[in-house]
Amino acid sequence: MAGNKANFTRLRLFVEDDLTTGAPVPLNRDQSHYLQNVMRKGEGDQIAVFNGRDGEYWAKIVAAKRGAVLVEPVELLRNQADEPDLWLVFAPIKRTAVSFLTSKATEIGVSQLMPVVTARTTTDRVNTKRLHANAIEAAEQSERLTVPVIAEPAKFQDFLRDWPRERLLLVGDETGNGRPIAEVAGELADEPRPYAVMTGPEGGFAPDELDQLGELPFVTFIGLGPRVLRADTAALATLSVVQSIAGDWTSKRL
Amino acid sequence: MAGNKANFTRLRLFVEDDLTTGAPVPLNRDQSHYLQNVMRKGEGDQIAVFNGRDGEYWAKIVAAKRGAVLVEPVELLRNQADEPDLWLVFAPIKRTAVSFLTSKATEIGVSQLMPVVTARTTTDRVNTKRLHANAIEAAEQSERLTVPVIAEPAKFQDFLRDWPRERLLLVGDETGNGRPIAEVAGELADEPRPYAVMTGPEGGFAPDELDQLGELPFVTFIGLGPRVLRADTAALATLSVVQSIAGDWTSKRL
Repeated sequence: MAGNKANFTRLRLFVEDDLTTGAPVPLNRDQSHYLQNVMRKGEGDQIAVFNGRDGEYWAKIVAAKRGAVLVEPVELLRNQADEPDLWLVFAPIKRTAVSFLTSKATEIGVSQLMPVVTARTTTDRVNTKRLHANAIEAAEQSERLTVPVIAEPAKFQDFLRDWPRERLLLVGDETGNGRPIAEVAGELADEPRPYAVMTGPEGGFAPDELDQLGELPFVTFIGLGPRVLRADTAALATLSVVQSIAGDWTSKRL
Repeated sequence: MAGNKANFTRLRLFVEDDLTTGAPVPLNRDQSHYLQNVMRKGEGDQIAVFNGRDGEYWAKIVAAKRGAVLVEPVELLRNQADEPDLWLVFAPIKRTAVSFLTSKATEIGVSQLMPVVTARTTTDRVNTKRLHANAIEAAEQSERLTVPVIAEPAKFQDFLRDWPRERLLLVGDETGNGRPIAEVAGELADEPRPYAVMTGPEGGFAPDELDQLGELPFVTFIGLGPRVLRADTAALATLSVVQSIAGDWTSKRL
C-alpha cells in the first residue's frame, strides 16, 4: 500500500507544450511559483507532467529562476489514453456551484462541458476561463491524462439546432416520470452510441422548453428516484450511473 | 407541466410535533421568521409540513405573532413512506465539504450518516447539530418524508467493533483494485441485504486501517473507474449507483 499511496500525493501538472524525452518545457508563472514557494522544489526535483496528447512523463526540474521553471521529461510513465466520449450539458448555476460541478464532472470522466442558457437561467455570464482552470486542477488531481473541453455558452435554441442528432441526450425529468436511469444506461451498454447528460437550471426548464425537448427523437427523459434532486446533484448522479454501467467504470484502474 | 412545477417551489417545512388534522403545531423561531419576514406569509396562507412519522400535510397558518407562528394541518397530502435502509459512513472532511456531503446524501436518499474518525482525519470536531440542520433543509427541499439520522462521531476501532456484521460495508478502494461498483450493486439487487457506503478522509485510509478492513467478512472494496475521485465525489457517486441499481431509484416518483 505505502508505495501506491505515494501516487496520490505526488506533484502532477498540466502543460500546454509537446512532451518528449529530453526536450525541456516551461511551466507557467503560477505553476513555477507553486513549485518553488509552496512546495519548495528546485533543480533536480522531479514531478509528473501531462498535456492531454502525449501521455504522462516524469520530468526533472532543470532550471528554476524566480517565477520561471523549466522541466525536462525523462521517462514516459503512461501512454496517452482518452476519457470516454461523454458530454455534460448544463444550465449555468451560481458561481460556486458551477466550479464545483466542473471539478466533479472532470473527476467522474466527462470529456466536454457545454453551458446552455435556458429561459430560467439566472446567471447571466459564464466564466469559461475559470471553469477551464477548475477542470485543469481536477484533471491534475484525479490522474486524468486529458482536460475536458469547456464549450462557449450557447442559447437553448441554438444548442438544439446544432445538436449532433445521432447523440442521445439524457435529460433529467423534474416531474418524476422519466425512465429509471439504470435501465437507460443498461441499453447504452448493450447498444453503444454517443450520449450526453443534460441538467436544467435550479428553477427547472420552462414548460415550452420541456415541450420542445419532448418532441426531439434524440432526447430521453430519465428519472432519479422519488426525491427531488438539485440540478448539480442530479448531474453528478446521472454521470456516475452511466459511467458505472455503460462507461469506463466497468474496468479497473490501470 | 405548470401545475406540477408548483410543487417544486411550494413552502415545505419540517416540524418535530405530531401531525394530525385539526391539531395546531408551533413553528420554531427561525421558521416563523422565515415565513413572516422572508416569504411574507400570514394568517390563512398554507404551507406543507412533515415530521418524519406522520406523512405530509397541507397546514394553514392560524396564528402569526412576531417570531411565533402556529399552523394547523388541514389535509393529508402523502402517507408516511420511509427512505431505503442506506447508511453513509464518512471520515469528516472540512466544514464546507461535510455540509455539502450531508445535503447531497440526503437528496440521494441516505437514512443515516455516521462520521468516523480515522488515523488521517484532519478535522478534530464534527458539528452534528449543524449537519442535522443541513439534513433538514435538504429533506424539505427534496420532498423527503424523513430526515436522515446523524450519528455521533465514533473512532475507527469502536466503529468496527460495533458494526452490525450482517450489514455489507462498501469501501472505496484507493488503489483501483476494487470490484466495479455496478457489479456489486447488481448482486445487492439480486440478493438484497442491508448495506452501507464508506468513504475515507482526503488523505486516504492508513495502511493498517486498510489491512483491518480487508480482513473483515462484511467489507467489500469497490472501484469507481480509472480516475482518482475525491472523498466526497466518491461517496456521492457510490450512493447514486447503488440507489439506481439496488435502491429506490428503480421506481418512478409517486
